[in-house]
Amino acid sequence: MDIEHRKIKKNIRFIRESGDPLGNSQIHISQTNHAFLFGCGAFDFIPYVMNKEERYKQLTDSWLEIFNYATLPFYWGGYEPEEGKPNYDKLMKTAKYLQSKGVKVKGHPLCWHTECAKWLMKYDNDTILKKQLERIDREVTGFAGIIDMWDVINEVVIMPVFDKYDNAVTRICKEKGRVSLIREVFARAHESNPDAILLLNDFNTSVNYEILIDGCLNAGVPISAIGIQSHQHQGYWGREKLEEVLERFSGFGIPIHFTENTLISGDIMPSFIEDLNDWQVDSWPTTPAGEERQAKEIEEMYRILFAHPLVEAITTWDYTDGAWLKAPSGFVREDGSRKPSFEMLKKLVKQEWWTDFTVTTDADGHATVEAFKGDYHIDCGIRRADASFSDDMDPVITVGI
Amino acid sequence: MDIEHRKIKKNIRFIRESGDPLGNSQIHISQTNHAFLFGCGAFDFIPYVMNKEERYKQLTDSWLEIFNYATLPFYWGGYEPEEGKPNYDKLMKTAKYLQSKGVKVKGHPLCWHTECAKWLMKYDNDTILKKQLERIDREVTGFAGIIDMWDVINEVVIMPVFDKYDNAVTRICKEKGRVSLIREVFARAHESNPDAILLLNDFNTSVNYEILIDGCLNAGVPISAIGIQSHQHQGYWGREKLEEVLERFSGFGIPIHFTENTLISGDIMPSFIEDLNDWQVDSWPTTPAGEERQAKEIEEMYRILFAHPLVEAITTWDYTDGAWLKAPSGFVREDGSRKPSFEMLKKLVKQEWWTDFTVTTDADGHATVEAFKGDYHIDCGIRRADASFSDDMDPVITVGI
Repeated sequence: MDIEHRKIKKNIRFIRESGDPLGNSQIHISQTNHAFLFGCGAFDFIPYVMNKEERYKQLTDSWLEIFNYATLPFYWGGYEPEEGKPNYDKLMKTAKYLQSKGVKVKGHPLCWHTECAKWLMKYDNDTILKKQLERIDREVTGFAGIIDMWDVINEVVIMPVFDKYDNAVTRICKEKGRVSLIREVFARAHESNPDAILLLNDFNTSVNYEILIDGCLNAGVPISAIGIQSHQHQGYWGREKLEEVLERFSGFGIPIHFTENTLISGDIMPSFIEDLNDWQVDSWPTTPAGEERQAKEIEEMYRILFAHPLVEAITTWDYTDGAWLKAPSGFVREDGSRKPSFEMLKKLVKQEWWTDFTVTTDADGHATVEAFKGDYHIDCGIRRADASFSDDMDPVITVGI
Repeated sequence: MDIEHRKIKKNIRFIRESGDPLGNSQIHISQTNHAFLFGCGAFDFIPYVMNKEERYKQLTDSWLEIFNYATLPFYWGGYEPEEGKPNYDKLMKTAKYLQSKGVKVKGHPLCWHTECAKWLMKYDNDTILKKQLERIDREVTGFAGIIDMWDVINEVVIMPVFDKYDNAVTRICKEKGRVSLIREVFARAHESNPDAILLLNDFNTSVNYEILIDGCLNAGVPISAIGIQSHQHQGYWGREKLEEVLERFSGFGIPIHFTENTLISGDIMPSFIEDLNDWQVDSWPTTPAGEERQAKEIEEMYRILFAHPLVEAITTWDYTDGAWLKAPSGFVREDGSRKPSFEMLKKLVKQEWWTDFTVTTDADGHATVEAFKGDYHIDCGIRRADASFSDDMDPVITVGI
């Protein structure tokens, strides 16, 4: 598969601060970050940052060996269990810690019928909507600069007909209709932070979701990227389905994020289960054969997605086994030990798709550089510069001390 | 079921041209037309109007005993088999004849992937779209005043993925996306005749169609009414499904038209057939038991729809047995004889839901009138007036000669 679009290939001129060329010099070009977003759920960073527990220290440090993109939980019910008392502090501290490690943070989600605040249900629909929009404004404004990426609204295809239990968000979605609600929540998020990347996110990859996106885009909803969930507890989609989904959702011409990817390393869940949450087991062990399979499936999937020009992010949902549904869905086992999928993905992200090499410039300071898009250290002897390699980068790099 | 919303109940004052009240007078109020649109396919009017064939005279005269709303065929392939030579004349003559009989006419459809003009396929997509929009402008402008109701675009849910055969409209829908194409064709139709009633029409009554409508309305598409097809060759939906469909599509708060209703009076088509057009039989007889069943099902369905406040029109697709798919789907048999469904529907439309009575005014000319909405003759002795009874009617009627 062609991944040339993930790289720059440019003639770059290296100069000193004086403007003189760094002619006939050895320039060491070493990548420090990817432009592509390799993401993972980062819920475990919260107890680490708040309590500095050793178990979480180990987990989060190994997490940082691969990923540059974190999803943090903003479920309204958990974030603000009592009205007016949001858990701002722990989310802000955790987000800042991740940012300090070069990790981009996404908040998930601002509006969803599941994990919704129960106290909302005492209000009438107009008040619920008002509070929903205020909540969006509070989070998006309050975290701007630290979190500039949001799953604005989650699982809207099912939202107005969700009937497992009554909840405030299904009520307003039923009354307003899907596209109207999406339009309002996106408008508010965009107003609160015009630079934010705003996602619509769904597990439904059928024509329903296509038509919903089509309607939203035509209604002027500022969707920055299409979020696609891919929890594969019931078995790997396989290349054919994955390519078919990419084909259908790339027709809109806007970026695609795989927001919630799961591939498990144990027995797969029976196919008769319709809502994954209905599969409640006491334990769900990881197995050696399952771990090999998981690593192979993750490799194939990441290679297909990395090759697709519109895909900008892949987030694996669970970092550690035994989280959601107790599934063996992580890159590390419950004891923190690394699974084959960890080693495989690290090799892809930090080796095969990673650039670290030395070029020699000509007399005028020019050299041709081919490198994966991202952030770099440029070293020439004791001189260093930081640079970002992208399609529209400045082709002159000043290497100072 | 409550049908009070189909009636006016008003205190009306009857006066002479001089302004004097028609006090203590007998006023005969006789309905001449329904506000509600009782429709039927009117394709058989074309050979009658063009060739005055006796067989069609009989058919069309009996058609006029019940219906006040006609669907005429504007399938692009049939209407303009050779580019630049549309069958304007016969459609215009037929539409004018129907109008002269008090029948409102709808053109069906302006854009559809089936029955599309084959000659379009030699053009590139930009040209196809341009010709599609010009075609819309030509028909909507050309027939304005005679035809002010259009099925603007038909079966868009399946349109971009329709794969039975290549056609020009699927090509442009695939390229532009559903909502964008809908927006363009509606914009052009609306521009060509701002007073026209413009319908989106589909056989898909799933959540797909709901989301499509939701997106279109939020994108500002001027949809006057939601068109729902209900071809029930595979058996009557039944009250439960019908009410469920009404419940879901009434959420948008705009009028609903049942545009293509079919209930058959013979054996029903097997349920494994997915595209009704795949059921090709040599003959499909009507049966006495089937005719009784059909009449009962039509009665139940019309009663449910007439009672629903947002339903404004019900169109049965075939007037005569043996038309589409050779099905026994008509109100009359192939020999023109009337089926029980004809007698039943005529009784509903022209008797049970029809107003014809005499009131006596008080000294000041007032009388309370309760009547189905529609057009009326108001007679007082040899004096006559025409009046329309509607919610916003003028409650003073001048009865002249």
